[in-house]
Amino acid sequence: MTQHLPALVTLLAVLLMFGTAFAVGRARGRYGIHAPATSGHPAFERAFRVQMNTLEAALLFLPTLWLAAAYGFAFWAGIAGLAWLAGRIWYALAYLREASRRGAGFALGMLAWVATLLMAVLGLGQAMLAG
Amino acid sequence: MTQHLPALVTLLAVLLMFGTAFAVGRARGRYGIHAPATSGHPAFERAFRVQMNTLEAALLFLPTLWLAAAYGFAFWAGIAGLAWLAGRIWYALAYLREASRRGAGFALGMLAWVATLLMAVLGLGQAMLAG
Amino acid sequence: MTQHLPALVTLLAVLLMFGTAFAVGRARGRYGIHAPATSGHPAFERAFRVQMNTLEAALLFLPTLWLAAAYGFAFWAGIAGLAWLAGRIWYALAYLREASRRGAGFALGMLAWVATLLMAVLGLGQAMLAG
Repeated sequence: MTQHLPALVTLLAVLLMFGTAFAVGRARGRYGIHAPATSGHPAFERAFRVQMNTLEAALLFLPTLWLAAAYGFAFWAGIAGLAWLAGRIWYALAYLREASRRGAGFALGMLAWVATLLMAVLGLGQAMLAG
Repeated sequence: MTQHLPALVTLLAVLLMFGTAFAVGRARGRYGIHAPATSGHPAFERAFRVQMNTLEAALLFLPTLWLAAAYGFAFWAGIAGLAWLAGRIWYALAYLREASRRGAGFALGMLAWVATLLMAVLGLGQAMLAG
Repeated sequence: MTQHLPALVTLLAVLLMFGTAFAVGRARGRYGIHAPATSGHPAFERAFRVQMNTLEAALLFLPTLWLAAAYGFAFWAGIAGLAWLAGRIWYALAYLREASRRGAGFALGMLAWVATLLMAVLGLGQAMLAG
């Protein structure tokens, strides 16, 4: 089962991205912000920033998750991935309520990303030194 | 040839993303919207939203496409991928003309994404239960 | 070592994306642009556009890099990837100073992307013809 953990984390990350897109669509309806506008109400703008920041974070995270997994850390990268998901869900829910509350979840996501980054660097470094 | 279908779909998805970026560049020139501005004319703003939404959709789609392919559904995920491409091209062309016409292509892309998502969930679920 | 080059390029591309996000955060502080706002000072807007354009470029580049690597061009795709990194770092540093200077680095990144795209097309085409 170990080797499936990064796949499970990826699937949940995709659902998280979808959830943040869904929150933007709902905010469009609720506050009457018609596409292509991306501003006009603070709550809509928060939802939009949550979505954008989640996409940005996933673009940093998914490659390091899979590099770490490919270079010998599938299990630990998967565990870091679960922490990343927890941090990013916390960030999204807190930011949707109030911009100032987004720090803690963001920091947890960041720490988990750094963990996968270090695993990728370590695994790739070892593989390159080994030829 | 079956196992190459997700690769072909990925290549075409990249070209679609490039096409939507190209449309933004052309709209910058045509309507005199100088970078870093991202607003100033409705047609430019539609082109910009088409690009952003295409990137968002690709970030949801490419991971589920490859998870489905990796867990036993390369052919059917590839077929769903062709439908996704059709929906997203339709969406882009319609939205560039008029924001209100973007629904049908968006819905087709969404359905095709859900198909790859279900394949990924099913394939991963079976693999995890099998150990 | 050849087969690790695309992995190394991917890791460096992730660090580049992180660097451009970091520059946005620093510009938020320096120019007092509080989230969720994404405008308000030209230097902040340039940093924001650099980040967005880097994400867009990485979304075009990483799939073609890995398709080229998977279909027999790991070494040359890795070399093109180093050129892509050079172009995108040049682009970012130049654009952060002045919007009009972003052309040359952008062009180098684009050329390197086209190189990986052609390798992916060639490799996939050969594989599909071979059955």
